[in-house]
Amino acid sequence: MSEEVVVSSEEPRRRSWRERWYEVIFEADTPAGKLFDVVLLIAILLSVLVVTLESVASIRDRYDTWLVRAEWFFTILFTLEYAARVVCAPRPWRYVVSFFGVVDLLAILPTYLVALPIFEAGPAQRLSVIRSLRLLRAFRVLKLAHMLSEADALRHAIWLARAKIAVFISFVVISVVIVASAMHLVEGGRIDADGQPVATGFDSIPEAMYWAVVTMTTVGYGDVSPATPLGKALAACMMILGYSMIIVPTGIVTAELSKEGKPGKPVSTQVCPGCMAEGHDVDARFCKYCGHAL
Amino acid sequence: MSEEVVVSSEEPRRRSWRERWYEVIFEADTPAGKLFDVVLLIAILLSVLVVTLESVASIRDRYDTWLVRAEWFFTILFTLEYAARVVCAPRPWRYVVSFFGVVDLLAILPTYLVALPIFEAGPAQRLSVIRSLRLLRAFRVLKLAHMLSEADALRHAIWLARAKIAVFISFVVISVVIVASAMHLVEGGRIDADGQPVATGFDSIPEAMYWAVVTMTTVGYGDVSPATPLGKALAACMMILGYSMIIVPTGIVTAELSKEGKPGKPVSTQVCPGCMAEGHDVDARFCKYCGHAL
Amino acid sequence: MSEEVVVSSEEPRRRSWRERWYEVIFEADTPAGKLFDVVLLIAILLSVLVVTLESVASIRDRYDTWLVRAEWFFTILFTLEYAARVVCAPRPWRYVVSFFGVVDLLAILPTYLVALPIFEAGPAQRLSVIRSLRLLRAFRVLKLAHMLSEADALRHAIWLARAKIAVFISFVVISVVIVASAMHLVEGGRIDADGQPVATGFDSIPEAMYWAVVTMTTVGYGDVSPATPLGKALAACMMILGYSMIIVPTGIVTAELSKEGKPGKPVSTQVCPGCMAEGHDVDARFCKYCGHAL
Amino acid sequence: MSEEVVVSSEEPRRRSWRERWYEVIFEADTPAGKLFDVVLLIAILLSVLVVTLESVASIRDRYDTWLVRAEWFFTILFTLEYAARVVCAPRPWRYVVSFFGVVDLLAILPTYLVALPIFEAGPAQRLSVIRSLRLLRAFRVLKLAHMLSEADALRHAIWLARAKIAVFISFVVISVVIVASAMHLVEGGRIDADGQPVATGFDSIPEAMYWAVVTMTTVGYGDVSPATPLGKALAACMMILGYSMIIVPTGIVTAELSKEGKPGKPVSTQVCPGCMAEGHDVDARFCKYCGHAL
Repeated sequence: MSEEVVVSSEEPRRRSWRERWYEVIFEADTPAGKLFDVVLLIAILLSVLVVTLESVASIRDRYDTWLVRAEWFFTILFTLEYAARVVCAPRPWRYVVSFFGVVDLLAILPTYLVALPIFEAGPAQRLSVIRSLRLLRAFRVLKLAHMLSEADALRHAIWLARAKIAVFISFVVISVVIVASAMHLVEGGRIDADGQPVATGFDSIPEAMYWAVVTMTTVGYGDVSPATPLGKALAACMMILGYSMIIVPTGIVTAELSKEGKPGKPVSTQVCPGCMAEGHDVDARFCKYCGHAL
Repeated sequence: MSEEVVVSSEEPRRRSWRERWYEVIFEADTPAGKLFDVVLLIAILLSVLVVTLESVASIRDRYDTWLVRAEWFFTILFTLEYAARVVCAPRPWRYVVSFFGVVDLLAILPTYLVALPIFEAGPAQRLSVIRSLRLLRAFRVLKLAHMLSEADALRHAIWLARAKIAVFISFVVISVVIVASAMHLVEGGRIDADGQPVATGFDSIPEAMYWAVVTMTTVGYGDVSPATPLGKALAACMMILGYSMIIVPTGIVTAELSKEGKPGKPVSTQVCPGCMAEGHDVDARFCKYCGHAL
Repeated sequence: MSEEVVVSSEEPRRRSWRERWYEVIFEADTPAGKLFDVVLLIAILLSVLVVTLESVASIRDRYDTWLVRAEWFFTILFTLEYAARVVCAPRPWRYVVSFFGVVDLLAILPTYLVALPIFEAGPAQRLSVIRSLRLLRAFRVLKLAHMLSEADALRHAIWLARAKIAVFISFVVISVVIVASAMHLVEGGRIDADGQPVATGFDSIPEAMYWAVVTMTTVGYGDVSPATPLGKALAACMMILGYSMIIVPTGIVTAELSKEGKPGKPVSTQVCPGCMAEGHDVDARFCKYCGHAL
Repeated sequence: MSEEVVVSSEEPRRRSWRERWYEVIFEADTPAGKLFDVVLLIAILLSVLVVTLESVASIRDRYDTWLVRAEWFFTILFTLEYAARVVCAPRPWRYVVSFFGVVDLLAILPTYLVALPIFEAGPAQRLSVIRSLRLLRAFRVLKLAHMLSEADALRHAIWLARAKIAVFISFVVISVVIVASAMHLVEGGRIDADGQPVATGFDSIPEAMYWAVVTMTTVGYGDVSPATPLGKALAACMMILGYSMIIVPTGIVTAELSKEGKPGKPVSTQVCPGCMAEGHDVDARFCKYCGHAL
C-alpha cells in the first residue's frame, strides 16, 4: 500500500525513512498521508462488506470461492499495514497495546487461525466463534472519524457535554431501576385460570429493566408490554415523564455549546487614555469614541 | 393553463412572448406567475390524489371510468405544461435533463405508453410496473417548496448544518455496523430443541443492521427483537447510548443557527477613508485601526 | 354558580349587572372571576371523568344510577353556565357561533336529546352515537389553558414558530407521499406460493402512507413493517434521514426563540447631543459617556 | 460503617461527638463524609443488586443461602445507618418523617417482618407482598444524585423549566383526553361477522388514553393500534402533530437556559451617588437617569 508513496520534494532529506513512513501511515496532513488514509478506508469498508456478505447464507453458498479469496487479500493487506505500523511507530509496544492496535491484530488473526490444521480438525462450532472475531474489523471503521474534520466539532461537543450526558444516563438508569421494581411488583407473578404462572416479561427485575429501557428511550418494541390496568397507568405516567425529561438535557447541552461557541466579539479590557472609554475590541489600536491611540 | 394569462400593462412591450411566458411559467414574483404556480400546484395535488385513489382496489373497481378520465385530463394538462416549459426555457436541453425535467417527463409518459397496442398485448405484470411509474409524479409536490418563503429558512438551515448532519449520519451508520456485528454474534445462529436453526432476525449482518437502524432511531417495530438475556442487555445499553447521543447534534445545530441568526454586535458597512479597513462597529466614529475619523 | 359572587367594593356602582357578570364569567383577573374559573374547571374535569368512567363497561354496569345522576347534575350546571354566557355576552350571537360556544352547546345537548321519547324508541346504535357527542366536552378542558399563565409563553412560542412548524409538517407530508409511493411499489402486490395475493399493509398508497407516518414519527407500532430485503433497506434509509432531520427544525425554533426572548437590552436610536454617542438604553435620560442630557 | 472515621485535626475539639457524626453522615464536604457516602452508595447498589438477582427464579433457586445471608448483612448495615441518622440528626423526628427517612425505614423493615413467626404462618401470597416492599430500597439510589456535582446543573435546569414542563405535560394530557375520546368513538364498539363485540383496545376511554399516551410519546408498542381506515388517518394526523410539537418546549427550555447562563450585557453593581439608581452598564461613567458622575 504505502511502498509506492513518494515523499514530496520540500521535505528535508536528513529525516530517516522511519520518520517519513510514520508521517504517511499515522498522520493525515501530507498528500501522501491523505492518500494512504483514503486507500485504507476503502479497504476497510470493502473488507467489512465482504464479512457482511459472508454472513448471508445464500450469498455464502454461491460465491464462497470469491469471498475466501477476497478475505485472504484483505488479511494480507492488513497484515502488511500492521507490520508497517509496528515498525514505524516510535514506541511500537505502545501502539500494540492501544485500542486500535488490539483491534488491528484481532482483525487479521482469525483468518490465519482458521487455516491452522489444529482448528480445522476441531468442531464446526468453535471454528465459527473464531471466524466471527473478524467482525471486530468493523471497529476499524472508526478510523474514518479522523478524516472528517467536522467530526472534531462533534467529538469536542460530546467531550464538553460528557458530564451532562453522564448525569443524564445515571438519571435514566436510576429511573429504570425504580420503574422496573414497581412494574415487577404490579405486573409480575400473574397466574392464569388454572393456577399456572404466566410469563409476562416482568417476572424478574432484570426483565422489567429491559422493558423499562425499551420504553423510556421510546423504542417500544412491544415484545413486552403491560397487561393490567394499573400497570398500563403506571407505564403511561412514566412515558409522559420520560418524554418530557428529554427536553432538559437537550436544553443544557445546547446552552453550553452556545455559550462556548459564541463569546460574541471578544472585548479588550483596555481603557482609552484619552476618554477612559472601555469596551474596545481586542484588535483595536485607537479609541473608537475619541480617536486617541490605545 | 397559461394561455389565458395576460401580462400586466406595466411590462415593457418590447419583450418577446417567450420571455413573458418564461416569467409566468418559471418564476413566481409576478401576479401571473403566482397564479400559474397555484393552479399547477392544485393540479399536481389532485393528480397525486387520483393515483393514490387508483391504488386502492375497492375504489379502482368502482370508479374506474372516472379515474381513467381524470388521469387523461391531468396527463394532457401536464403534457401542455411540459411542452410550454421546453419552448420557453432559454436553454431547453438544460431543463429536459434537470431533475424536475426528468420527473415531469416520467410523470406523463406512462399514460401514453400503457395506451400503446404493444403494451396492451403484453403481460399484466409489465403493464403494472409501467403504470406505477406515474407515482413519480409525487416528486413534483416538491415544487410546492418554492411557494413557501419560510421553506427557505429551513433549506438554508439544512444547508448550514449539512456537514454536521453528514457526520451524525456517519456516526449512526458506523454504530449500526458495529452493533449489528455484535448482535449477530450474540443472537444469531440459534438452534431449537430439535437441532433445527431458528430464524431470529439476526441470522446475517444485513438483517442485524436493519434491526439496529430500527432500534437506534427509536422506531422499534418489534418485528425483530433480542431474545437472549445477553442480547437484551446489549440492546438496552445501545438504546440508552443512542438516546443520549441525539442530544449532542441537536445542540450543535442549534448553537450554529443561533450564531448565524444573531451576529452579536452589528457591524457597520463603512470603510475607513484613512486605511480602508472594514468591520467597524455601528457606533464607531473613528477608525479603530488608524484613528482616522469615519 | 355565579349567583353568589359578590363584586368587590372598589367597583364603581354605575355598571349594570350584565357588565359585572360578564367580568366574572368571561374574564379571570378579578377574585370572583378566578373563583368562577376554578369551580368551572373542576366541574369540567369531573364531568369528563364521569363520561370516561361511563365508557368502561364494568363500571357502567355497576354504578349506572350514580353516573346518570352525575350526568344530569353536570348537564344542568353547564346549561345554566351556557345561559349565563349567552345573556351576559355583549354580542350573544358571536359567542354562540364561536368555537367554545358550539362546543359548550354540543356538550349539553346529547343528555337532553337522549331523554326525548323519539330517540328512546330508536335503535340502540343511533342512541349510542348521540350519547357519544357528549365526549366533545373533553374539548372544554382547553379552557384550562387560560388559567396557566405559563401557557401563554408556550402559545406565544408556537405562534412565533407556526410558519416553521407548518413548513416542517409540509416537509413530513411530502416525504410521506414519496416514501409511501416507493414502498407501495417495492412491497405491495406480493403473491404467495399459491398465486394468492398477500395482505402486506402496502397494498394501496393510503395504507403505505399510514406506515410511513408511523415510521417517520418514530412511533413504530410494528403492525405494518417491510418484509422484503429491498423494502427493509429503503425503510432503514428513510428512518436515518427522518431521525436526522428532526434536529433541524428544533434548531430553527430554538434559535428564533432565543433571538426573540433575549434581545439583550433594547437599545435606543437616540444620539447624545453632547458627544453624538449612540447605543443608549431606551430608558436612559443622560448620555452614559459624557453626562449630557439626552 | 462510620465508627472508624477519624475527624481531621483542624476540627476544633469543643464540638460534641453528635455534631461530628452529623457532619460525617449527613454532609459530604469533609473527607470522612465523602468516604461514608461512597461506602454507603456501594452498599446500596450491592443491596439493590441482591434484590434484583433474587427476583430471577433460576438464580434464587440456586444461590438462595447466599442471597439470604447478603440480605441480612445489608439489612443490619442499613439498620445501623438508620439508627445513627436518628441519633445524630438535630431534630430526629424531622428526619424520620422526611422522604428519605420513610424510604430508609421501609427498606429495612420487610426483612425483619418476614422473619416474624406470625408472618411465616400466613399465606405465601401475603409474605411475597411484604418482601417486595424491600424493592423500595431502589429509591435510595437517588442519594447518588448529591454526589455528582454535575447533577446540580440538571436539577437547577429542571427547576427553572418546571413551569414549562408542567404546561407541556398538561398540554399532552389534554391532547390525550381529546384524542382518546375521538379514537374511542371511531374505533371502539366494533362487531365481528357473528354480531359479537371485538376487543379493539379502544373499548373504553381509559384504554384509548393508554393507546394515546403510547402513541404521542412515540413509544408505539403496537399492542393496541387502529384498524379502521378512519382511525388510521386520525392516528396519523395526531402523530405528525405530536411529533412537531416536541420541538416547541425544547426550544423554550433551551432559550430559557441560554438566557440564564449568558446574561447579555453585564450590569454593574454600582449605585448612582446622585439618585441611587442601579442597573448601570459596566462601561457607564455617568448615571443614565440623573447625569451624576458614577
